[in-house]
Amino acid sequence: MTPVVATIRVIYGDTDMMGVAYYGNYLRWFEVGRNELIRARGMTYRQFEDRGLILPVVEASVKYWKSALYDDVLEIHTTVAELSRVRMGFEYVIRRGEDRIATGTTMHACLSKAGKPSRIPDDVADMLRR
Amino acid sequence: MTPVVATIRVIYGDTDMMGVAYYGNYLRWFEVGRNELIRARGMTYRQFEDRGLILPVVEASVKYWKSALYDDVLEIHTTVAELSRVRMGFEYVIRRGEDRIATGTTMHACLSKAGKPSRIPDDVADMLRR
Amino acid sequence: MTPVVATIRVIYGDTDMMGVAYYGNYLRWFEVGRNELIRARGMTYRQFEDRGLILPVVEASVKYWKSALYDDVLEIHTTVAELSRVRMGFEYVIRRGEDRIATGTTMHACLSKAGKPSRIPDDVADMLRR
Amino acid sequence: MTPVVATIRVIYGDTDMMGVAYYGNYLRWFEVGRNELIRARGMTYRQFEDRGLILPVVEASVKYWKSALYDDVLEIHTTVAELSRVRMGFEYVIRRGEDRIATGTTMHACLSKAGKPSRIPDDVADMLRR
Repeated sequence: MTPVVATIRVIYGDTDMMGVAYYGNYLRWFEVGRNELIRARGMTYRQFEDRGLILPVVEASVKYWKSALYDDVLEIHTTVAELSRVRMGFEYVIRRGEDRIATGTTMHACLSKAGKPSRIPDDVADMLRR
Repeated sequence: MTPVVATIRVIYGDTDMMGVAYYGNYLRWFEVGRNELIRARGMTYRQFEDRGLILPVVEASVKYWKSALYDDVLEIHTTVAELSRVRMGFEYVIRRGEDRIATGTTMHACLSKAGKPSRIPDDVADMLRR
Repeated sequence: MTPVVATIRVIYGDTDMMGVAYYGNYLRWFEVGRNELIRARGMTYRQFEDRGLILPVVEASVKYWKSALYDDVLEIHTTVAELSRVRMGFEYVIRRGEDRIATGTTMHACLSKAGKPSRIPDDVADMLRR
Repeated sequence: MTPVVATIRVIYGDTDMMGVAYYGNYLRWFEVGRNELIRARGMTYRQFEDRGLILPVVEASVKYWKSALYDDVLEIHTTVAELSRVRMGFEYVIRRGEDRIATGTTMHACLSKAGKPSRIPDDVADMLRR
């Protein structure tokens, strides 16, 4: 599966006094990545919600390999790593040119808006598998 | 009117590569201040919403007098600065000991959840005036 | 003076429980806008710092005209509004298509890294005036 | 080892349009927790830096068990989970009363400010082991 690539630029507000991007921001950038993947598959997360479903994150992990710096242009490469009837997992690689800055994962449950575990609709699963 | 005082401690995630608190965070701290004022008046913003009302910010301003640093304990002094039938304004002073770090204002409209301008309920206005 | 335009897309992490972009994020977006303006003038803020100068924000203001929503693509239109020997001011208009979402200003002092007020270098002033 | 407990209150700016605390904020709260642990051991992270050492995060993970809501008071329980000559690991449990909201870990390298792996000073290791 080819990763979907999104791009962000690091701003001052993303850095901390160590002079590098704060570790908590990577989870925001992972969100940018999976939004782009879902969009590339022909959906938006908003449409997903219109069907009464939410995809809360149940687990997340990050490995920080190199520091990201102010004004860096970062590529977020996102793939679907796992897809069961009720969960989906994404994998992320954040790159700056040839450098691997960070890698990580998120695992999501599929819930109704009332919070009940729900089956991922077949057409959604098909789209994500592509 | 005596200001209501809330306290926060600056974390790494609040700083930027200049080594000081990022300018955008002050609006978060103003929110901490007005939450505390509303609580000190015997309400919570959540209860406010339970009555079908929201208080979106329509204007905000900040003056930055001194830098706030990592691990600083900051006091947020909040007062009600203006109160009409459909708008309320807050004033904020952020202090570190004797130092004035920042001052600012927010102005809020009172809206129904559907977005229609609504009159601020009398008991709410009375509470805020105290 | 023609505004310089930067573009951002609103993510989940930018929204709050009212379902709209949190009011504090606009100051981040203003930063994106002025970074883009400085880049369009042939500099980066990083280069500015390499000359031993910093441009801390001394004042900021925002007016919120309409709500920005998840997945919105927003344009940040930035202009240089004021330029004296020691201060520079920027103006921002955030648009979604024809809608004006927010407007605002920031005023910056020019300081040496040691914190001493410094004159804005002539070539920088010339670039910004263009 | 008894965990050190820090407390935070969820603000509007921490929530997202799902009505719950955004998943990226938990890494900020983990930072609040380990700051408090380091302080409870008689140090501040700032003093740590004064010795020319930094402790960048090299890995982080979060499990999200229940949603945190606006105005919730959350306890962050932090323990030292691992301590070698060049790395230290922390474990976090975020609670709201009896509810377990989230658990997680961070692993930190000990580096000189120039980025060279450095041995954790004995007195620091002793303090953390207490």
